[in-house]
Amino acid sequence: MTKFAVLGHGVVGSGTVELFLKNKDKINQKCDLELELGRILDLRDFPGLPYSDKFTKDINDILNDDEITVVAEVMGGVNPAFEFVSGCLKAGKSVCTSNKELVAKKGAELISLAKENNCNFMFEASTGGAIPIIRPLHTCLAANEITAAAGILNGTTNFILTKMLTDNMTLEDALAMAQRLGYAERNPAADVEGHDACRKICILSSLIFGKHVYPDWVHVEGITGITTEDAEYAVSFGGAVKLIGKVTQTDDGKILPMVSPAFVCSANPLSHVDDVFNGIMVFGDGFGEAMFYGRGAGKLPTASAVLGDVIDCAKHKNTIRSLTWEDSADNSFIADYKDSETRMYIRLENCDKSAIEAAFPDCEYLSRKAQPANEFAIVTPSLKEREIDEKLENIGGKVLGKIRILDL
Amino acid sequence: MTKFAVLGHGVVGSGTVELFLKNKDKINQKCDLELELGRILDLRDFPGLPYSDKFTKDINDILNDDEITVVAEVMGGVNPAFEFVSGCLKAGKSVCTSNKELVAKKGAELISLAKENNCNFMFEASTGGAIPIIRPLHTCLAANEITAAAGILNGTTNFILTKMLTDNMTLEDALAMAQRLGYAERNPAADVEGHDACRKICILSSLIFGKHVYPDWVHVEGITGITTEDAEYAVSFGGAVKLIGKVTQTDDGKILPMVSPAFVCSANPLSHVDDVFNGIMVFGDGFGEAMFYGRGAGKLPTASAVLGDVIDCAKHKNTIRSLTWEDSADNSFIADYKDSETRMYIRLENCDKSAIEAAFPDCEYLSRKAQPANEFAIVTPSLKEREIDEKLENIGGKVLGKIRILDL
Repeated sequence: MTKFAVLGHGVVGSGTVELFLKNKDKINQKCDLELELGRILDLRDFPGLPYSDKFTKDINDILNDDEITVVAEVMGGVNPAFEFVSGCLKAGKSVCTSNKELVAKKGAELISLAKENNCNFMFEASTGGAIPIIRPLHTCLAANEITAAAGILNGTTNFILTKMLTDNMTLEDALAMAQRLGYAERNPAADVEGHDACRKICILSSLIFGKHVYPDWVHVEGITGITTEDAEYAVSFGGAVKLIGKVTQTDDGKILPMVSPAFVCSANPLSHVDDVFNGIMVFGDGFGEAMFYGRGAGKLPTASAVLGDVIDCAKHKNTIRSLTWEDSADNSFIADYKDSETRMYIRLENCDKSAIEAAFPDCEYLSRKAQPANEFAIVTPSLKEREIDEKLENIGGKVLGKIRILDL
Repeated sequence: MTKFAVLGHGVVGSGTVELFLKNKDKINQKCDLELELGRILDLRDFPGLPYSDKFTKDINDILNDDEITVVAEVMGGVNPAFEFVSGCLKAGKSVCTSNKELVAKKGAELISLAKENNCNFMFEASTGGAIPIIRPLHTCLAANEITAAAGILNGTTNFILTKMLTDNMTLEDALAMAQRLGYAERNPAADVEGHDACRKICILSSLIFGKHVYPDWVHVEGITGITTEDAEYAVSFGGAVKLIGKVTQTDDGKILPMVSPAFVCSANPLSHVDDVFNGIMVFGDGFGEAMFYGRGAGKLPTASAVLGDVIDCAKHKNTIRSLTWEDSADNSFIADYKDSETRMYIRLENCDKSAIEAAFPDCEYLSRKAQPANEFAIVTPSLKEREIDEKLENIGGKVLGKIRILDL
């Protein structure tokens, strides 16, 4: 018999228990296991549940229980999750987490601690929610050199952008709708300012390139500046505007992780990832390109990913995974996004067409309904961002919007 | 050190060697392995290659080499692959195959043989080519009850249908183009008649529902009857026509695997899977829905999947996977598709509108450019197939086309 504990009985924690208890017999039969729910750590009381006897407020009840060999950490936040997870790993218990903040900020340290203690630190649920992405990247695609990844990594902002694009809603109205439907927090900053997507691209970047990428090192732009006009121009461009987390390699051997809105043309599968869904594309020398699509958040979807890891740990108790990356002393391997080339959508007001043509000779013009005569929207050729900004400083008129084109 | 052998040096076999040798150092470093190419079995001679010394024409050179613990079978076909794979498994060597025909026809037997001999039979490459699908289904989604799967499982037919839809090409012209580009065989029957997709849905069905589904038990319709008019009506429907392999559960506890063309509405991610790409959607009680997208065939993409399995076997030598299903004595658990409900697109000639309305009171009408006055195209409400066919027998006029609607 193997017992697992659950740290935190919030949305994901209760979902993890619910999904496990629902499918326990099938899981154990299919996987030839005797997996049982051990203890649940939460400071609150949950009387009247069929598993109320499992609760404890003391982490030591888990740390000292030798029957518990796997722990699901679904509390979120760095404190006290980091302390609890460290304690579990030191006690030789494998930990499976959905906590993207913990992995993005403390991943290298916890991976190394797991290794020292002959157990595993797993985090399939931390990126892309229910979507299998960490394990496929690490096992199924192991023969490849992975060269890049790009994804829609935050369901809340994708819902908002979808509503702006398909229903012509303003950002404010779409956000309010997302809040009413429970897709957005009352304080939506982590989502709309791109920090949530940033944590996820940090995790993917670290896994793909083998060195820890800390969130502070990533250039992040959220969706707060996106207007319905931008959305209309995205349609005129033949695509959609999406919040994209991506990581690419640069010519000088560095990597460039970044989060920002982008125009995605309709030939790119990411342009069709709508509503609260997430989609992650990866690129490699053998498989070419692949996309993984599904629910990036939510009670049962996240529970599905956490339990997948728990079952794997329970099935292969003595297997140490090579799911690992090194810590990074500094960010010298991170490229400056200003030096990278991109095509750019730019919306300009009160600007001479001759000045635009002088600055961006081969630009493409976009149009929208009710476009004022003093407004131009262009897509530049591929140029260094630094160069685009310099040209815009001297172009005259006012820049109303500026969004990268996703070219991958 | 672990050595692996390759059975067959055709397209996939040479790709497997090429990709491994290209990335060998990175693979070994990342996975903490010392994996080496052992022998390659092929009846032909391949002089002048950097690894020409590895070839043998005698399977015993592999069977009797104790350093070879993993074998990649990439020959295709049942004979002599079945004999060779059986021999390897009996010798305790794990086998990783891209051979969908072998898995679809002999999977249960080979899985059981692997178990008896404490080794693994793995087949990530057999379904969806490079797309990680077998392992994600079996591990990442292990906590779920998987309820259904549906996918575009054949790149050749998807290329042809895409050309018919977007470039208005005839099936004959699109097939000829696919043959010119090397996407279709000179004898395209296995692709266009749906047998290739059938093997893949057999493998997915067996894995998901735990009982071997043999190809002969599956209702298969290919794309040979699809016309450009059908493609136009699919666009008018608001979607695309795709060759879909799917498996669902029926109310009486049976399963219904099937391959047939289907109209897929544009809200369904599968409708945007174009050209030679494959896409596989799976449905489960925890994660909801997920889609896996990528290259379903080709030299390096298939090699990527085969090598992913080889590396996994090499990393976890003493791990026996629960990637398994039982053999089935008969097909009593397979439902009759005639009893299943579906919406149906029907193209009719010389038929009274009153007769159509009497037969299908709530049907939706589709239209196309240059639609003759004596032609109707409808989408029926959801009805049993048997019922639809009975109604059509009495409707008068001629049925020119009949394609299921994918509702999942």
